[in-house]
Amino acid sequence: MSGRFTRLIRFLAKDGRTYYGDAILPQGVSDIAKAQRARIIEGDIFGRYHVTDQEVGVRLLLSPLAQSQVKTVRCLGLNYAKHAKESNMPEPKYPVLFYKPITALSGPADPIPVHSMAQEGTGLDYECELVVVIGRRCSDVSEADALNYVLGYSVGNDVSHRDWQIKHGGSQWSLGKAFDGWAPFGPAIVTGDVIKDPQTLNIWTKVNGETVQDGNTSDMIFGVRQMISFLSRGVTLMPGDVIFTGTPEGVGMGRKPQVWLKDGDVVEVGLDSVGTCTNRVEFEAPKAKI
Amino acid sequence: MSGRFTRLIRFLAKDGRTYYGDAILPQGVSDIAKAQRARIIEGDIFGRYHVTDQEVGVRLLLSPLAQSQVKTVRCLGLNYAKHAKESNMPEPKYPVLFYKPITALSGPADPIPVHSMAQEGTGLDYECELVVVIGRRCSDVSEADALNYVLGYSVGNDVSHRDWQIKHGGSQWSLGKAFDGWAPFGPAIVTGDVIKDPQTLNIWTKVNGETVQDGNTSDMIFGVRQMISFLSRGVTLMPGDVIFTGTPEGVGMGRKPQVWLKDGDVVEVGLDSVGTCTNRVEFEAPKAKI
Repeated sequence: MSGRFTRLIRFLAKDGRTYYGDAILPQGVSDIAKAQRARIIEGDIFGRYHVTDQEVGVRLLLSPLAQSQVKTVRCLGLNYAKHAKESNMPEPKYPVLFYKPITALSGPADPIPVHSMAQEGTGLDYECELVVVIGRRCSDVSEADALNYVLGYSVGNDVSHRDWQIKHGGSQWSLGKAFDGWAPFGPAIVTGDVIKDPQTLNIWTKVNGETVQDGNTSDMIFGVRQMISFLSRGVTLMPGDVIFTGTPEGVGMGRKPQVWLKDGDVVEVGLDSVGTCTNRVEFEAPKAKI
Repeated sequence: MSGRFTRLIRFLAKDGRTYYGDAILPQGVSDIAKAQRARIIEGDIFGRYHVTDQEVGVRLLLSPLAQSQVKTVRCLGLNYAKHAKESNMPEPKYPVLFYKPITALSGPADPIPVHSMAQEGTGLDYECELVVVIGRRCSDVSEADALNYVLGYSVGNDVSHRDWQIKHGGSQWSLGKAFDGWAPFGPAIVTGDVIKDPQTLNIWTKVNGETVQDGNTSDMIFGVRQMISFLSRGVTLMPGDVIFTGTPEGVGMGRKPQVWLKDGDVVEVGLDSVGTCTNRVEFEAPKAKI
């Protein structure tokens, strides 16, 4: 079989090599994290490629994009109406934009490392987010054309430390969101052939199996078409750029009482048609005094 | 002659090719933007390289780093005591961190393109900044060791649109700072062999030849050693990462009355031991309605 991929995974195969593949879902399985086999893809996933008919077994799912494939990680804040409300913030008039460094990116089987700096105070929190991967270079894109520049969709966790984000960040949020490994995403990049409308998807977070966020992308204030058009005004979006598109209500900060992630917690973020990205919180030993 | 470079430039040579070179300064000239000749560098500027004894003529200085060589552009806000004061903001307790996308990077002979979106309202402003280029991968660096990870220093302009940064950004500044070409820097990357102490340098901006910022890096709240140590806590800094380290007093927003850049203005930012990066403001024609 050849043609276009629909469920793109990057994985360590049972033969010990790393591949891009089009995931094969067993009957009755919808979570791509459970794919055990894939058809190998040859070529450039952003350009000319070929989905071969060679099947291999999946040993371990990797981040769908290596850090070196990504130019810029954009994130939107306060992009779900109910989350803006739980944050005691007005709905924004324009998309609220911030960034993570590419070193924050990781995959659906990686731990979330918590540096000693982020063990101070309180506020370690989760944020499930629809992740948009840009497929083609573009700028000044219309809303009507916007989805033509999308490679596909994934789900990620905009891991945040509220003290460093809000109390100590001097109004800028990045400090509490930029640690290595604090932007896990996966398990796959699912194309528009499967996800025809990105504004109709259930999105959730489970901590140690308990559902803590349970939203739908229909609650987004700025939808995917709108944000790509807006963010591309005077700005060139590059193949491999990823956009974390904001989180629905239910973050630990918004709960009463507030709930924070602890060492050893297992956090699953999930999205319809994509599946789950599950990461374990791992507090790091303090570094030697620097 | 071989050995280490001290004044690294990337340039189009008179032979029509693009090179890295070690700039040769004519006697009595300190502004590397005026270098007319350079010794060609072969190899990897972040790794094994060789400064040859082959001299070539410089036709045009390019951005010292191509966008593809840079992983992350970090910027500090409110990092000069007098600028914090003119912004009516308290001195921050921790570095105030935000990012620009790599597509904002440009060189010392490029225009500053102003998209129609940034022609709306008021507030097009300049910010001269010492730019630090990271030379080696590092994390959890001590202040004592920090400068060992620096490739060198440059000067850049953190071009900003105050309406989009402050009024419309929803508290996050990046929206008004992220346009293509809004982080010009150059003309060179000057190493620690020349700049032994980065906290002793005059830094200035001239608009159409008139001095509008005239500061000194000694006024920084967080010096280069401190910021590298702080920013690397739990975060891996990569070779080619650049840090715009904040601007001194005198920005257009802080002047009475406020002064904004206009189409055709020529903006020079300068730094002792490095020289000048001069860019012309070019308002773009509106794009077709999108």
